[in-house]
Amino acid sequence: MKALITGASGFVGGHLAKHLFSSGDEVLALDPSVDISDESALFEAMAAFASERVDVIYHLAALAHVGDSFGSSVKVFGVNVIGTLNLLESSRKMSPEAKIIVVSSSEVYGRVDPRYLPVDEDAPLAPLSPYAASKAAAEHVALQAFRAYGQRVIIARPFNHIGPGQSDSYVVSAIARRVVMAKMNGSRSIVAGNLQSKRDFTDVRDVVDAYRKMAEFGVPGVVYNVCSGKAETIADLAEKLITLAGADVKFVSDPGLRRDVEVTDIAGDSTRCRSELNWRPQIPIETSLRDVLAWWSARLTAY
Amino acid sequence: MKALITGASGFVGGHLAKHLFSSGDEVLALDPSVDISDESALFEAMAAFASERVDVIYHLAALAHVGDSFGSSVKVFGVNVIGTLNLLESSRKMSPEAKIIVVSSSEVYGRVDPRYLPVDEDAPLAPLSPYAASKAAAEHVALQAFRAYGQRVIIARPFNHIGPGQSDSYVVSAIARRVVMAKMNGSRSIVAGNLQSKRDFTDVRDVVDAYRKMAEFGVPGVVYNVCSGKAETIADLAEKLITLAGADVKFVSDPGLRRDVEVTDIAGDSTRCRSELNWRPQIPIETSLRDVLAWWSARLTAY
Repeated sequence: MKALITGASGFVGGHLAKHLFSSGDEVLALDPSVDISDESALFEAMAAFASERVDVIYHLAALAHVGDSFGSSVKVFGVNVIGTLNLLESSRKMSPEAKIIVVSSSEVYGRVDPRYLPVDEDAPLAPLSPYAASKAAAEHVALQAFRAYGQRVIIARPFNHIGPGQSDSYVVSAIARRVVMAKMNGSRSIVAGNLQSKRDFTDVRDVVDAYRKMAEFGVPGVVYNVCSGKAETIADLAEKLITLAGADVKFVSDPGLRRDVEVTDIAGDSTRCRSELNWRPQIPIETSLRDVLAWWSARLTAY
Repeated sequence: MKALITGASGFVGGHLAKHLFSSGDEVLALDPSVDISDESALFEAMAAFASERVDVIYHLAALAHVGDSFGSSVKVFGVNVIGTLNLLESSRKMSPEAKIIVVSSSEVYGRVDPRYLPVDEDAPLAPLSPYAASKAAAEHVALQAFRAYGQRVIIARPFNHIGPGQSDSYVVSAIARRVVMAKMNGSRSIVAGNLQSKRDFTDVRDVVDAYRKMAEFGVPGVVYNVCSGKAETIADLAEKLITLAGADVKFVSDPGLRRDVEVTDIAGDSTRCRSELNWRPQIPIETSLRDVLAWWSARLTAY
């Protein structure tokens, strides 16, 4: 397949590009310096691919941090919503036949009544953060293009990712970094926010495998949860990180690291992805955590 | 009540202002020349109301034409989505206690399986036009502000409006204009688009009465359909217009007036508005049509 990636320079984009290369795909990347919220800039950048006959576009470019979005909602909507609108319009002109994998987020579900967990794709959307609202809005943008113009849009709703290379503005990566640091400098305690949250984690390498399977087997107009189906507390993952690192540290809670408004417990139903795409997560959580620790060790040692 | 209206210079805004005045409310209007998609322009304009302690904000300002939105989606999203985001942020600072009536549209439902008609507020959203997608997105913006910040947002989903003063880019007003013109110049035929569509029409004066009742009795975070509950074909309304006008004309179908992508048959369930707000439409459709004809007669004679 010939693939075009937006957001190729990001954490997920990098893993996706690697996975596509190793699957034998041809990979093109939108220049990451292009502001996709700027219609003419995006159209100009996309024009470079006009003769390429791309089979699939993986639309990952986004402002993706939940906490940061509270202070920058207009910017977040510009990139995540107007950017998606611009991408769909330009690809409608350049590659009308291409499948377009639009990456949304499990955050669109908001706080889900525990009785309805694990949550499936037909649940109502109840975004809690500007980021989540922007992703719910972008889904409408994308599915409208499917309904009105027949664009072959597929929506991916990934739950929490973990894996090597993730920024420490995400909780598991942040804790792994602190565990590695503590071990390096002999510290016996590390701070953490809300350890009692339950989330559904999938290794980023399994997530990008799901995206490629959507490009192969996904049905246009359909939404797919990408998740393990199991919720784990941050505390459990933190304990596993400590054990795997062989560190001797305790957590000290820092209320400053909590957000007032936060989705706490969430788990997804991945039945559709498993049965329609024959996808399932392959990487055990211990492997993911070990790789995250190794990545931070290499990175922190290098400085 | 002290009310602030955005979009006061529009068709619905004008009727709303009149209704609020006659109900004894104090009415403020946002300068209609302000581009609400421009954050700093809107904040500056809203600052004028900082000392006013407004009880309710009626957010009507929008690019509201379904057909036009296909050619101007980025602009439509700017005004309808980013504009709503800006309005909520500025009112969070200026009037955090105000109720905010965010006017969405029945277009968010898209094409509804006839088995699910009349459609209630819990139906899935499936926007078909960029306009509809922008309204679905704006609902997420507004409800996110309710969930995260406690803003007292209420969503109105009006179905089709009719009434004096409506632009002839809307079907019933367009037909009324042509009927009046035909009668004036003795023509025996008038062109029309898809007369077989079924829509749920409510007089704009009943619609704005529902908005005021939402300000009084509506529950924050809740969505209310505003509709009659009955679907009528455009053909039936067209025949009624001809009879009421005493005109002797026939319709000639013009496929150029049809849109390829259109919501055809729709009717809404207004149970929530009726039971929770004690609202019901008061104006018979014949009165609405007679008033629309009278308005066009006066307007076309004046030239």
